[in-house]
Amino acid sequence: MALIVEKFGGTSVGDVDRINAVADQVAHTKTSGVQLVVVLSAMAGETNRLLDLGARVSPASEHREIDVLISTGEQVTIALLALALEARGVRARSYTGDQVRIVTDNVHGKARILDIETHRIEADLAEDRVVIVAGFQGQDLEGNITTLGRGGSDTTAVALAAALNAGECRIFTDVDGVYTADPRVVPNARRLSQITTEEMLELASVGAKVLQTRAVEFAGKYGVTIRVLSSFEEGPGTLISQEIDEMEQPLISGIAYNGDEAKLTITGVPDEPGVASRIFGPLSDAHINVDMIIQNVTGDDTTDLTFTVHRNEFAKAKEILDATAQVLGASEVIGDQTLAKVSVVGVGMRSHAGIAARMFKTLADEGINIQLISTSEIKISVGIADRYLELAVRSLHRVFGLDESPEHEMLGPAVD
Amino acid sequence: MALIVEKFGGTSVGDVDRINAVADQVAHTKTSGVQLVVVLSAMAGETNRLLDLGARVSPASEHREIDVLISTGEQVTIALLALALEARGVRARSYTGDQVRIVTDNVHGKARILDIETHRIEADLAEDRVVIVAGFQGQDLEGNITTLGRGGSDTTAVALAAALNAGECRIFTDVDGVYTADPRVVPNARRLSQITTEEMLELASVGAKVLQTRAVEFAGKYGVTIRVLSSFEEGPGTLISQEIDEMEQPLISGIAYNGDEAKLTITGVPDEPGVASRIFGPLSDAHINVDMIIQNVTGDDTTDLTFTVHRNEFAKAKEILDATAQVLGASEVIGDQTLAKVSVVGVGMRSHAGIAARMFKTLADEGINIQLISTSEIKISVGIADRYLELAVRSLHRVFGLDESPEHEMLGPAVD
Repeated sequence: MALIVEKFGGTSVGDVDRINAVADQVAHTKTSGVQLVVVLSAMAGETNRLLDLGARVSPASEHREIDVLISTGEQVTIALLALALEARGVRARSYTGDQVRIVTDNVHGKARILDIETHRIEADLAEDRVVIVAGFQGQDLEGNITTLGRGGSDTTAVALAAALNAGECRIFTDVDGVYTADPRVVPNARRLSQITTEEMLELASVGAKVLQTRAVEFAGKYGVTIRVLSSFEEGPGTLISQEIDEMEQPLISGIAYNGDEAKLTITGVPDEPGVASRIFGPLSDAHINVDMIIQNVTGDDTTDLTFTVHRNEFAKAKEILDATAQVLGASEVIGDQTLAKVSVVGVGMRSHAGIAARMFKTLADEGINIQLISTSEIKISVGIADRYLELAVRSLHRVFGLDESPEHEMLGPAVD
Repeated sequence: MALIVEKFGGTSVGDVDRINAVADQVAHTKTSGVQLVVVLSAMAGETNRLLDLGARVSPASEHREIDVLISTGEQVTIALLALALEARGVRARSYTGDQVRIVTDNVHGKARILDIETHRIEADLAEDRVVIVAGFQGQDLEGNITTLGRGGSDTTAVALAAALNAGECRIFTDVDGVYTADPRVVPNARRLSQITTEEMLELASVGAKVLQTRAVEFAGKYGVTIRVLSSFEEGPGTLISQEIDEMEQPLISGIAYNGDEAKLTITGVPDEPGVASRIFGPLSDAHINVDMIIQNVTGDDTTDLTFTVHRNEFAKAKEILDATAQVLGASEVIGDQTLAKVSVVGVGMRSHAGIAARMFKTLADEGINIQLISTSEIKISVGIADRYLELAVRSLHRVFGLDESPEHEMLGPAVD
């Protein structure tokens, strides 16, 4: 019997009516003769409500206790869905992260999954129960409750799909699939019917916002097939898998952006071995995610180094970098909080020259200055002033033929 | 270093302001140089809010999932108190019932504590942390979340005090101690400074409503000293311990009542061995608490049997009894849902004759008909029509000298 993991996000379980609708849908899927594991987020707004309660008793957020507090959000929805399914005659059983147990490291608020015990879930599936698991949460090796960070329920779902060797991991969300660009920025963006995990990873990490990056990483690493679907309307969604037919491979799959970047440059750094690790070690210790890193050669015995972080982490990163600069005897630290990043992504660009040149020319034609460039095998990203963000995304979407040309729509049949 | 367990109920942690007030109080107690374990209920109203959500997705209450749902209530308050204490510079750590772990049987919604693992708590206490434990909840032997039923946080606190061999278990509540009668019924009821566990047990089980019966049972069984205190105003409260000075022992400690009783009588039951267990076995299997049981001798080869249950369980009990009556070939089942129970309680009555006679005469003088009588070594209870309840309680309170006579006030010094 096929095993499917389905994940419903916060808006999909936003109130009792929505939970009843999810119960109807899950009950219907169950009758088609599959084994089902359902992963749920907290009701939309609940995590913020709990964080607000926490903020009202303590200005500092003691992470262990914040995790105890906010993990109640998913515990409420899993119990409600189990009740709703039982009311429909569907046998179901709910589990919190630590009941499963989903073992994580001990970085509260940003924990990573280390292992998942599957025996309780498998025993319930064997007895034909729908198993409902709280997303976003786990338990560290000492038994403390941990959470995976915003969007962590996606990771829970994909990790469960990997651990249980599920045929498909369906992520139900408030959009009906992955688009060539954010439809709020590019109104005539198109839904992709297929995309590779690798492309999705590049899209997610630069801000496509459909799926959490770690979830896609997990999917790539363990060969999990994901389908992104709308929980509000029927449709085939977008299939995300490791390989798709080369013939149907478009040149560029999509344009992604992130308007919340900040840039930090440290100049006059002695150009000697080990200096990069002395710069990024303290940032990593503080759990600050560094995105693009560019090192410029200056010609003398010093070098300049630029990197980007999320704007929320700018102040903390600058403080750490200032301290590092003093230790290293660097010249100065320059910060800029008005950066945006725009990326073109596509596995197809591996075998096609000229994508970069076309991208840079498009931006130049619009009068947009490029501050940073960073490339990977399937992605080219540029840093620009954030006021040009929409203009850049729309121009690139048009120039790379994503607006309407049918040759770029992937035609592979929906797998079900 | 003395170890104290403190428990705060739902109104004591009813909102963020109240939680901050509890944090102030706990922080102050901690500075006096004791080891502290704090047990919390859910915010007042939260359990009902969650139950209401559950009722909106399922008419039947699937008990396993209801426990998953409502156990989030205490998890929120323990995290908030831990955050509030950390904000005050007091090191603290919170634990849910299954983290501790508090092992219970698997009767969801009415579970009983079987064992408490203390090593995590003791490790934290050794590191001078305040340990905060979610009341009301535990984990069965298979790892499912269980709850202990209404008022179960008292039981959690006393059981923890027993397991940790605490010097005192302080129950903070919305009254300032145990009274000679319910002050809402008898305005000049007096607070007792001391009472025995045994008396408290009789008072609690017949409706004094200050402490959950099972908590007092636990305290009696394991020799835990309880102090009932107001969380809203300072005062010595009432000390509940196994023995109090005989010299200070009053004749009667208090008058208790329960206005929500119902009575069931099965008549014409064959008077043969084993018949009582055939009647009460099915009621016990359905987890219906039977209170008073009276068997009348009728003289022929049949007998009549009367018992009382809580009015909420009357319909279920009657249905079961009707079925049993058919099997036994009994004559009929008679029900009455207008019963109230009034009890006089006191260890002193062991050595004094005439209490019963004085009680019955008092009720007769007021024209109140006694329907049932049940006695124990330290208690006499009568069943009367519920419309006479207040009249009976006030009359007995006055006749037994509880209204003002100082000779009945216990004078033992407050232990701190």
